[in-house]
Amino acid sequence: MNDKVMLRLIALGLKLPLPPHPLGAYKAVIEAGSVLYVSMQGPVVPGHPKPVGLLGKDLTIEDGQAAARLAVLNSLAQIHQHLGGFEQVRQIIRLEGYVACVDDFIDHPAVLDGASRLLVDLFKERAGHVRSVCGVRNLPANLPVAVGLTVELESLRDS
Amino acid sequence: MNDKVMLRLIALGLKLPLPPHPLGAYKAVIEAGSVLYVSMQGPVVPGHPKPVGLLGKDLTIEDGQAAARLAVLNSLAQIHQHLGGFEQVRQIIRLEGYVACVDDFIDHPAVLDGASRLLVDLFKERAGHVRSVCGVRNLPANLPVAVGLTVELESLRDS
Amino acid sequence: MNDKVMLRLIALGLKLPLPPHPLGAYKAVIEAGSVLYVSMQGPVVPGHPKPVGLLGKDLTIEDGQAAARLAVLNSLAQIHQHLGGFEQVRQIIRLEGYVACVDDFIDHPAVLDGASRLLVDLFKERAGHVRSVCGVRNLPANLPVAVGLTVELESLRDS
Repeated sequence: MNDKVMLRLIALGLKLPLPPHPLGAYKAVIEAGSVLYVSMQGPVVPGHPKPVGLLGKDLTIEDGQAAARLAVLNSLAQIHQHLGGFEQVRQIIRLEGYVACVDDFIDHPAVLDGASRLLVDLFKERAGHVRSVCGVRNLPANLPVAVGLTVELESLRDS
Repeated sequence: MNDKVMLRLIALGLKLPLPPHPLGAYKAVIEAGSVLYVSMQGPVVPGHPKPVGLLGKDLTIEDGQAAARLAVLNSLAQIHQHLGGFEQVRQIIRLEGYVACVDDFIDHPAVLDGASRLLVDLFKERAGHVRSVCGVRNLPANLPVAVGLTVELESLRDS
Repeated sequence: MNDKVMLRLIALGLKLPLPPHPLGAYKAVIEAGSVLYVSMQGPVVPGHPKPVGLLGKDLTIEDGQAAARLAVLNSLAQIHQHLGGFEQVRQIIRLEGYVACVDDFIDHPAVLDGASRLLVDLFKERAGHVRSVCGVRNLPANLPVAVGLTVELESLRDS
């Protein structure tokens, strides 16, 4: 196997989850030109959300970081299922984060960094990504965190 | 008329609303390369929002689905005004949903499916779209639902 | 100096702030094809957020407009640092706004217009931009407003 991202994933003791099914009449992944969009993913294990609740009440920042990490792993699982690997990924363009939290929560960046640091560990110089994050009232199925991922693909047009 | 989307719209007993005017110093639609972006649209009929309020308090899930459907119809009206039809639409890339709701609301995917299912009914194999949704505190003018739509256009460069 | 945006900025009595550092393992700006993405920016002056709090409680609409204006100035500072100027900007594609506010707030469009009007004043016919905005529970560091900016660059491929 020459896929460096997969090798690093194994070296970290991680593996790709089964990619979750969409929760309605949409797709997990759309490719348009050299950009690949992934539907919002949360910290779910096959069949149910894990954990649930609000940051600042039901979850600590460390819990939130682990949830963000699992959400981005599910996003990567969708990409892997679509592309068959990560060698065609030129760079991560964008990570959009949503944190369900109590009124006085202010540590959204620390929570999202659970996802960003994993992207850096796996994609190194291709990890790139701009980021946005806001504190929302709630998320589907009472998820505490969710992320949207956009990546750029290698393109013959640019070679 | 050869525009299959318009024919299907008529067959469903629907028609495109008048595209709402932007609420400030921005545009309803921007075209960049082969991607067309539509400003966030809500369930408004000319001149005023309809309905208003929160999911889980003022609106049922069925109300929310109808609101999401009207929001996406307004998005399609913007596209139609910009392009003059839907034949240049290669695929729907992305639907971003915002649901204004009470604290314990968890059925965001069901609400957004009012929009996604209409896209599938109208665009069939071109309906595509990844999706994101979060539960927010509120939306402009007390709207219960709003959507942002991004579509890919047919492009001579790729033919 | 031939950069019209910089000349207009000076004529308005404004100057670009120091571009804020990312708050984690991500980048301020990513360029992919002819699209440039900027990480979410808030109304911060070097080292600390200013102001903080909720629209409808701690800040008036005018305060919010000034905050949105500063957030977009920080976004432009990031673009300027990345490109060395604004002459390569073909058009502003998209402005995503987040407003932290009390439950009954409805004037999100007026707040965001502080950002949109500055873009129009500076970029004129290139100001373009579709817009989205929602009322969130909170934002990082208790910021009242934050914006995400996406711009299209001039591209040899299209010349």
